[in-house]
Amino acid sequence: MIHGPNLGLLGRREPEIYGRTTLAEIDAALQALGSELGLEVRCLQRDGEGEIVSAIGAAPGSVQGILINPAAYTHTSVAIRDALAAVAGMGVPAVEVHLSQTAARDEFRQRSLVAGVCRGTVAGFGAGSYLLGLRGLAALLGEAGA
Amino acid sequence: MIHGPNLGLLGRREPEIYGRTTLAEIDAALQALGSELGLEVRCLQRDGEGEIVSAIGAAPGSVQGILINPAAYTHTSVAIRDALAAVAGMGVPAVEVHLSQTAARDEFRQRSLVAGVCRGTVAGFGAGSYLLGLRGLAALLGEAGA
Amino acid sequence: MIHGPNLGLLGRREPEIYGRTTLAEIDAALQALGSELGLEVRCLQRDGEGEIVSAIGAAPGSVQGILINPAAYTHTSVAIRDALAAVAGMGVPAVEVHLSQTAARDEFRQRSLVAGVCRGTVAGFGAGSYLLGLRGLAALLGEAGA
Amino acid sequence: MIHGPNLGLLGRREPEIYGRTTLAEIDAALQALGSELGLEVRCLQRDGEGEIVSAIGAAPGSVQGILINPAAYTHTSVAIRDALAAVAGMGVPAVEVHLSQTAARDEFRQRSLVAGVCRGTVAGFGAGSYLLGLRGLAALLGEAGA
Amino acid sequence: MIHGPNLGLLGRREPEIYGRTTLAEIDAALQALGSELGLEVRCLQRDGEGEIVSAIGAAPGSVQGILINPAAYTHTSVAIRDALAAVAGMGVPAVEVHLSQTAARDEFRQRSLVAGVCRGTVAGFGAGSYLLGLRGLAALLGEAGA
Amino acid sequence: MIHGPNLGLLGRREPEIYGRTTLAEIDAALQALGSELGLEVRCLQRDGEGEIVSAIGAAPGSVQGILINPAAYTHTSVAIRDALAAVAGMGVPAVEVHLSQTAARDEFRQRSLVAGVCRGTVAGFGAGSYLLGLRGLAALLGEAGA
Amino acid sequence: MIHGPNLGLLGRREPEIYGRTTLAEIDAALQALGSELGLEVRCLQRDGEGEIVSAIGAAPGSVQGILINPAAYTHTSVAIRDALAAVAGMGVPAVEVHLSQTAARDEFRQRSLVAGVCRGTVAGFGAGSYLLGLRGLAALLGEAGA
Amino acid sequence: MIHGPNLGLLGRREPEIYGRTTLAEIDAALQALGSELGLEVRCLQRDGEGEIVSAIGAAPGSVQGILINPAAYTHTSVAIRDALAAVAGMGVPAVEVHLSQTAARDEFRQRSLVAGVCRGTVAGFGAGSYLLGLRGLAALLGEAGA
Amino acid sequence: MIHGPNLGLLGRREPEIYGRTTLAEIDAALQALGSELGLEVRCLQRDGEGEIVSAIGAAPGSVQGILINPAAYTHTSVAIRDALAAVAGMGVPAVEVHLSQTAARDEFRQRSLVAGVCRGTVAGFGAGSYLLGLRGLAALLGEAGA
Amino acid sequence: MIHGPNLGLLGRREPEIYGRTTLAEIDAALQALGSELGLEVRCLQRDGEGEIVSAIGAAPGSVQGILINPAAYTHTSVAIRDALAAVAGMGVPAVEVHLSQTAARDEFRQRSLVAGVCRGTVAGFGAGSYLLGLRGLAALLGEAGA
Amino acid sequence: MIHGPNLGLLGRREPEIYGRTTLAEIDAALQALGSELGLEVRCLQRDGEGEIVSAIGAAPGSVQGILINPAAYTHTSVAIRDALAAVAGMGVPAVEVHLSQTAARDEFRQRSLVAGVCRGTVAGFGAGSYLLGLRGLAALLGEAGA
Amino acid sequence: MIHGPNLGLLGRREPEIYGRTTLAEIDAALQALGSELGLEVRCLQRDGEGEIVSAIGAAPGSVQGILINPAAYTHTSVAIRDALAAVAGMGVPAVEVHLSQTAARDEFRQRSLVAGVCRGTVAGFGAGSYLLGLRGLAALLGEAGA
Repeated sequence: MIHGPNLGLLGRREPEIYGRTTLAEIDAALQALGSELGLEVRCLQRDGEGEIVSAIGAAPGSVQGILINPAAYTHTSVAIRDALAAVAGMGVPAVEVHLSQTAARDEFRQRSLVAGVCRGTVAGFGAGSYLLGLRGLAALLGEAGA
Repeated sequence: MIHGPNLGLLGRREPEIYGRTTLAEIDAALQALGSELGLEVRCLQRDGEGEIVSAIGAAPGSVQGILINPAAYTHTSVAIRDALAAVAGMGVPAVEVHLSQTAARDEFRQRSLVAGVCRGTVAGFGAGSYLLGLRGLAALLGEAGA
Repeated sequence: MIHGPNLGLLGRREPEIYGRTTLAEIDAALQALGSELGLEVRCLQRDGEGEIVSAIGAAPGSVQGILINPAAYTHTSVAIRDALAAVAGMGVPAVEVHLSQTAARDEFRQRSLVAGVCRGTVAGFGAGSYLLGLRGLAALLGEAGA
Repeated sequence: MIHGPNLGLLGRREPEIYGRTTLAEIDAALQALGSELGLEVRCLQRDGEGEIVSAIGAAPGSVQGILINPAAYTHTSVAIRDALAAVAGMGVPAVEVHLSQTAARDEFRQRSLVAGVCRGTVAGFGAGSYLLGLRGLAALLGEAGA
Repeated sequence: MIHGPNLGLLGRREPEIYGRTTLAEIDAALQALGSELGLEVRCLQRDGEGEIVSAIGAAPGSVQGILINPAAYTHTSVAIRDALAAVAGMGVPAVEVHLSQTAARDEFRQRSLVAGVCRGTVAGFGAGSYLLGLRGLAALLGEAGA
Repeated sequence: MIHGPNLGLLGRREPEIYGRTTLAEIDAALQALGSELGLEVRCLQRDGEGEIVSAIGAAPGSVQGILINPAAYTHTSVAIRDALAAVAGMGVPAVEVHLSQTAARDEFRQRSLVAGVCRGTVAGFGAGSYLLGLRGLAALLGEAGA
Repeated sequence: MIHGPNLGLLGRREPEIYGRTTLAEIDAALQALGSELGLEVRCLQRDGEGEIVSAIGAAPGSVQGILINPAAYTHTSVAIRDALAAVAGMGVPAVEVHLSQTAARDEFRQRSLVAGVCRGTVAGFGAGSYLLGLRGLAALLGEAGA
Repeated sequence: MIHGPNLGLLGRREPEIYGRTTLAEIDAALQALGSELGLEVRCLQRDGEGEIVSAIGAAPGSVQGILINPAAYTHTSVAIRDALAAVAGMGVPAVEVHLSQTAARDEFRQRSLVAGVCRGTVAGFGAGSYLLGLRGLAALLGEAGA
Repeated sequence: MIHGPNLGLLGRREPEIYGRTTLAEIDAALQALGSELGLEVRCLQRDGEGEIVSAIGAAPGSVQGILINPAAYTHTSVAIRDALAAVAGMGVPAVEVHLSQTAARDEFRQRSLVAGVCRGTVAGFGAGSYLLGLRGLAALLGEAGA
Repeated sequence: MIHGPNLGLLGRREPEIYGRTTLAEIDAALQALGSELGLEVRCLQRDGEGEIVSAIGAAPGSVQGILINPAAYTHTSVAIRDALAAVAGMGVPAVEVHLSQTAARDEFRQRSLVAGVCRGTVAGFGAGSYLLGLRGLAALLGEAGA
Repeated sequence: MIHGPNLGLLGRREPEIYGRTTLAEIDAALQALGSELGLEVRCLQRDGEGEIVSAIGAAPGSVQGILINPAAYTHTSVAIRDALAAVAGMGVPAVEVHLSQTAARDEFRQRSLVAGVCRGTVAGFGAGSYLLGLRGLAALLGEAGA
Repeated sequence: MIHGPNLGLLGRREPEIYGRTTLAEIDAALQALGSELGLEVRCLQRDGEGEIVSAIGAAPGSVQGILINPAAYTHTSVAIRDALAAVAGMGVPAVEVHLSQTAARDEFRQRSLVAGVCRGTVAGFGAGSYLLGLRGLAALLGEAGA
């Protein structure tokens, strides 16, 4: 699980859009659901585009799949797109999750550079998006659960 | 569950994009998962924009929530958007599902008129999108399951 | 009088935009004003684009003029535009009415495909738009009243 | 009633678009209908954008509502928009009228900067647009008449 | 042969653009040419987008090819596009015909959503477009005649 | 018959798009069909935009109609458009033909500058487009055949 | 001769673009050339859009033709366009002149709203543009001189 | 100090955007700060674009610099831009001030035609923008104060 | 004098736009005016973009200035633009002339690639545009005459 | 005070745009003015978008307000926008400063993603922009000084 | 080696952009480097788009690869693009070279229609671009040298 | 030599686009060619935009020139553009290299923010682009070799 920029503020930042659940609570819920589905879930949060690119590049040989909320970089980062495309070609699928319905927000949030190279997208269920995304990724990896 | 235009052909139509599962199989799986989550799931498929508008308009007082795959109308129908917005204002939330990652396809499929008035979106998991969408809708309705 | 999609929900749907008057009340008011102006007013509501096209196509030889609120189809329907242009060329003028000021709403509601083939437009007076539109149509038909 | 630029030429200017009625005849008809509706109607015509802005700014405390045909400034004047928005916030509603169907004319006439801050719009009925607009404004002011 | 919206008015509607030939006359001519080419031609006209989608969806196993004049839906219907793409993938080719040169008309008629999934296009020959289109379709089906 | 740039390579160039028929074979088939329809067909191929303009300008007084495949110039040449418009005004109609469905190809091939000044268009039938175009032109010239 | 906004500064303002000739010198030269051509030339300079609209509206019955340098309003004024169109329809042709080649300057100076309703345009010859424009207008008025 | 259109309404107009300070209070504060900085400040407010152009044109030889809030004309006036560019070339720099953060408002307020010819811009500090703008202008004029 | 594509048809081609004067008559009038102004005028007409580029490239050392009507290439030819820019840098100025007001015609004729590298432009005076253009060019070359 | 990318080169980099003052000199001047206004000013410079996001995220509880020159990220960083919006919602206002008038530079510098979430903007006064921005921020924080 | 329009003027034309080296000197340098790399280099320069199309069409069977500077046609010629694509499909790769960095110049020079069908591009090294391009082409042809 | 994001995966990532050569092999080849040309080549790879900005900012006084493959940042980074512009103004030229022909790929890869501030560009020759780029840079630095 890769959390993008500003998500460290979750629970305190604009709670009417992003909810009051903290990142630690989401990570705990993901790990609990992972246990249930027979998957180990590792979580990290990074504010830097390059750090996220590096984390994705380190995935092959280390994890089976990527769950990612690229936050603001969803709309601007060709580099993260290229990284996800690269590891997809090396057998590591990704699933994109969003807390809110980005389609209902600003004009510059309409374009997702990342969706086209992810296998699936889940958006709008608040913290629930993460859990649904993990179930979806598990299904893609051939696990039961979705 | 409202299936939009051309989905009656599912399983036979462009299987490299839409998969080989038929609509009847998806409906059965939805009803099975519904039972498990304590929800009754009713399914219908319509090719006509006006018929889908009418079906949505009939929802208040009849169902608790709407799961919808508007297919081609996702990108062109202001009328379906207006219908979903109307019933959302009357207490019936909707969740949008798509078989494929529409973001990775034609230019004219980039714009979703419907997403902005749905509470959540699930795309790209093939028939699995429907099941994840139902779990998400159940969670929104205050049911356990997601 | 042709009412477009979702207008059957009037009075219950997003009342802060569309008001609390129902369609039946509007139709009654139109018929009352029609009597006063010496005109018989027939009303129908349809959710389907094709049904509206057919209703317009049936106008020549049956009615003298058309009062229409195309609702969501205002912005997307070339077919309704073509139908109105066809019957205008056969001597049946149309007047377009809207409950709200569409110009003050979403970007995709800025374009009216229909206005260019209607003789007149009235928008923003709530249910009053219909009555002003009927007066205007009556005047165009050579009746006193506007 | 505020008439915008070039309307002093009415009756002589491009009569196939704007009709042969003169401004004096329109003003007389408005005042007659005003009497009938129990309203006093004051009329002025200005070619200058700034003069129209000033006239609108002088409205609060002096008139109850504004009927305006901004003519060419409809499409270019943010200043008139701001003036109408300002007085609307001070309790003076406005109704926009147009002689012709602007939607059926040049590209640069498609955008109305003014409609979004007017309560209602009437267009395409020639001189009749003014009378319908006055009825609409009267109704908005709580008068009988529409 | 599928005729789209408003074509039932043919012969009476804007004859300077669409000519004076009626739909019945075109259908008779198509059937006559079909006989000559050894093909049975079945004709239907529908105003509804969904009805046309359904008719196309019913084609596989029923007809060998589709001749279609989608009229106004040419420019707005992703659903008809998807239907034609679906049946093309199931072995039923389509040919698009237009009475007029759409390229010489309104801006919003410049885009054809349908052409990209039809095997061929014929436009601008009035009723003759249908006959040339049938010859072209016959040739695509391996028949002599073009 | 005027063949535009690169068509001299026909049969050898990108055969998956343009087919394996050579230009000489197409010209022979056109002349055979011309004989059948009672028309003499003269053919020329030019790579230069100016040469095609000159050939069109020489048409009045020399030929009755023009069959043209402007190839790449379809999308870029205002000069050929002007030439075709000029001779159309002098009584020489033109029909545009294309081997492939240009609508299904690159973005910059979507705009046809030429279609608006041609009487008809035939596209997508490979070498068959030429024969259908000749039939169409013959019909426009008052000949039997379409 | 109507000079638009900021032209009173001519000779002192950005002389590398607009030259060092003053407005008074241009007016004198115009009057001298007018004498030679048998025309009386009246000149005025206005900074206000509305004042220019009024001056144009006063032209019919007073002058035979209008020579105008709308300066900045060339690119923004629909009102001046409407005024020129109105008086053109009343028999008073206009010729537009510019000191500089506006096409070689800022993006927002590329669009001329005025050119489409003027009979002719002369640009880029500095003060000479005025004299060529007067000759052209004289020729349009049936005078010798061009 | 030049105040643009509608600013005479300040304090009464949309106070949630523009605040409750009146223009007279702002002018007094500017003059007080001017005294402190050793500058005489003259203030005027105009609704007309042409009047503002004239006021700017009168600046050289009369004032050392211009502080301007062009209000609505910021987004539409090429004439004011040209006037400011003209006097800048004659040694009179300008500073643009705005009460609100225009960048956070309507789409058509995103473009500033004026900023490019002003030496500096201050926006978003309410009435404080004027005082900061005067300090900035004073600094540009070689005065101490910023 | 360089005449662009299709101008050989002048006098016969769309006379309602281009007039009835032939190219030979224009050339004779130019040479007569040239004599009067003390200039020798050489004229040529070319349909090919490359031929016009070559003619411009041959100008330095051979003629003092270029009068050009690029016709359709005005809107599409970067090559002619580059040629005119190249010879302008070598001391040979150009003046662009047009028979009609291109600004009042098709959308794709709104952009002039050539104007930005010509010293002046004259448009809309029919054959008179050429004579005014020659006077303007003569003035630019330091000759009396404008 | 957060300085964005490349600002470490200040004083040496393109001095005709950015001036010769170094970052150390600006920081010293800010701290001096801060003392005068009773504020402690802490300064840092970062080249990385993620590092700036992290610095902003660390502001609540640590500083009262943020003065930021996002430099190149002004135009591309949704992440910095989101960070500033997040901390604004947590009671830490920001003021954006720019050395140059970005409005007068490249096309891609016209859009500011950051301005909409800052309380105020100061641009174009060189190093003076920082001092004016600090005064403005101090005023927003309820300090005397502007 | 194919040189496009206006390149015959090289060395004399806008030397601050294109340098002072002549075409003959470039051709000599290419032939010298060709000798060194074991390749025979043939050079030609053409101003006409059609002539360049013909030259490319003649390449298969005659040369192994094409080095081309399409100059102005880079941005406008679909015909040259089609020609290069055609011969690429017949085993003749092309490399595009430019003297200057076109990316740093006019807006309409930003689009390269040609790059997409060339194997490689070299730009910005003046006459050196040709030599690097030849080395690159040689490497693509399996020769040593790059 | 600065390698941008994701290039550490070279040889394993999408080899059909980027080839099978690894970054270490490219660096070795560059250093070998550098020795031959009398230049020392230092190589680094960074995923972070800010790290690349810092590396460029450290160039003056340390290296003579920069060879850079900005990869995904080519299309999104104004910060890298600004850094390259800054050091170019301090005497350190840059050359941009790309493995593939970016012009033949996604829409969002069409814009290069970086090219305009690099002296030269080499693209499409796979690993060979680096070697040609180094030769080009060497030539720009006054070394023999290109």
